[in-house]
Amino acid sequence: MASTIGDLGEFGLIERVTARFPRTDDVILGPGDDAAVVRAPDRRVVASTDMLVEGRHFRRDWSTPRDIGHKAVAQNFADVAAMGARPTTLLIGLGVPADLAVDWADEFAAGVAAECATAGGTVVGGDTVRSDTVVVSVTALGDLGGRAEVRRDGARPGDVVAVAGRLGLSAAGLALLDRGLDAPEACLREHRRPRPPYAEGPRAALLGATAMLDVSDGLVQDLGHLCAASGVTIDLERAALVPPPELRAAAAALAGERSADATALMLAGGEDHALAATFPPGTELPDAWTRIGTVAPRSAEADAAAAPAVTVDGRPTDAAGWRHFG
Amino acid sequence: MASTIGDLGEFGLIERVTARFPRTDDVILGPGDDAAVVRAPDRRVVASTDMLVEGRHFRRDWSTPRDIGHKAVAQNFADVAAMGARPTTLLIGLGVPADLAVDWADEFAAGVAAECATAGGTVVGGDTVRSDTVVVSVTALGDLGGRAEVRRDGARPGDVVAVAGRLGLSAAGLALLDRGLDAPEACLREHRRPRPPYAEGPRAALLGATAMLDVSDGLVQDLGHLCAASGVTIDLERAALVPPPELRAAAAALAGERSADATALMLAGGEDHALAATFPPGTELPDAWTRIGTVAPRSAEADAAAAPAVTVDGRPTDAAGWRHFG
Repeated sequence: MASTIGDLGEFGLIERVTARFPRTDDVILGPGDDAAVVRAPDRRVVASTDMLVEGRHFRRDWSTPRDIGHKAVAQNFADVAAMGARPTTLLIGLGVPADLAVDWADEFAAGVAAECATAGGTVVGGDTVRSDTVVVSVTALGDLGGRAEVRRDGARPGDVVAVAGRLGLSAAGLALLDRGLDAPEACLREHRRPRPPYAEGPRAALLGATAMLDVSDGLVQDLGHLCAASGVTIDLERAALVPPPELRAAAAALAGERSADATALMLAGGEDHALAATFPPGTELPDAWTRIGTVAPRSAEADAAAAPAVTVDGRPTDAAGWRHFG
Repeated sequence: MASTIGDLGEFGLIERVTARFPRTDDVILGPGDDAAVVRAPDRRVVASTDMLVEGRHFRRDWSTPRDIGHKAVAQNFADVAAMGARPTTLLIGLGVPADLAVDWADEFAAGVAAECATAGGTVVGGDTVRSDTVVVSVTALGDLGGRAEVRRDGARPGDVVAVAGRLGLSAAGLALLDRGLDAPEACLREHRRPRPPYAEGPRAALLGATAMLDVSDGLVQDLGHLCAASGVTIDLERAALVPPPELRAAAAALAGERSADATALMLAGGEDHALAATFPPGTELPDAWTRIGTVAPRSAEADAAAAPAVTVDGRPTDAAGWRHFG
């Protein structure tokens, strides 16, 4: 029995990992050839890629391989959903040390498969290489099903800003792990396995969303990107940002930290992969969406003063996002 | 002026790198949003992914960043061409140390752009992350333009085996570098910047190729995969494998090494990304394709004896391919 990935070899690992992925209706040709062939029924394909590096995006002592598999899929299919598309397929590059246990790869693949099942996608291709640390690269494809893609640049003054999914829990979970705390469990779980509201992406597109993105770097920072692309500003309503009980409990556990304010965690925390979108005024929002603010014009004066594009109750916020090369 | 990638930051690096890629007719929405939107005119998309790790797939002292950009694109678009598809777009994940010079990223991007121009594709998305060593992940997409995809499993007894592109030069180049030699330059160049015959993939599909792949692990090893998928054997003709002068010169320079035989380099060397295909007997092959062997049935006796699927002039060859977890 091969117990390390070095024993198993590259082709053995690929076969072992890909064997567990079902062939869905989106797949014409799955893993095992030079390339996969995927259906693109509406003559367009949505594509996004992300790289996760051990020590930077996850720690093997804080997340199980199954968690990492879940998260790698979630963050990529969230990007697809944020365009208004339905997640269809994934290609995964996996760099692993030769002495890594085969169990690790099996568990990683199990996490990938489980999250794929939740999102409705599957894996059609991949590559495994040797690397000193674990590196996971995921490319996600999606289908727009005839809908116009929802970009970041379509928000208009008067539009309503709304979110679907969770805010701040993942960041709280990370802060708790960093402090050596293991409760509230709900926050740790969201950090390890974020649960993007995949179906809300296509739904928002059908509702006429004018702009949309997934919250990966923090709500204020990501909405800042949307404002820059659309040439608008956004004012959020603090009263609409209601921290759930587990986030308040986490904030209490973290008391004394900069991150201890539950609302600040909602404004600055990334990686929950909530969807944030703007809708024309008067849009009737389904229960999954919470109205949190309003789009306003960007004035020349504000531009000249380099005023922040995103405010809370009319005031600037110091909520800083996540900088990968800080 | 930012001189390291750490100074520039993630978003600065992404903008800097993506700014140089033209928007081609295949691109509906390029970099800068949650995901790209790419045309898939025939309702199918071909997709392949590869990961390159510093120290394993390239060395920064042996290859310039421009070389690495070329090679990362070439090996992925070769996979797309090997399905009979036209390369269209790429998504690139780049893991780099924060202290890496910005020049490095600029030169890498220049290599990517130049190879994209050769292949006819462009970059529509990417991700940059911090990593202790340089890791490049490339996902390539392609369009079949109405052609049936050419898989590995369609070779039939009696088919002709042919190759387009180069064999053995890249492996010779690597062996020369390993010995500290810097000539013949042609071999080093092919190792650093392989030149897959992109246009021959779609052309082979139109000619009726029954199976095809790109030679990345070595001709014998890769044809072995084709044989396994198709349930056939292949006999190669040594007389048809004519080493070009630069490969003979390399073999002479490497005299005394196991790899010193020029024909052995053609049989075992990978990474030139030649295309190898099988065609129905009687197919009139264009000049770019060289007939090198014939497909035969796989007998039950051969199966039982675990006889090698690929022979040369009827005899087994010990040409070993490239094992990533040896």
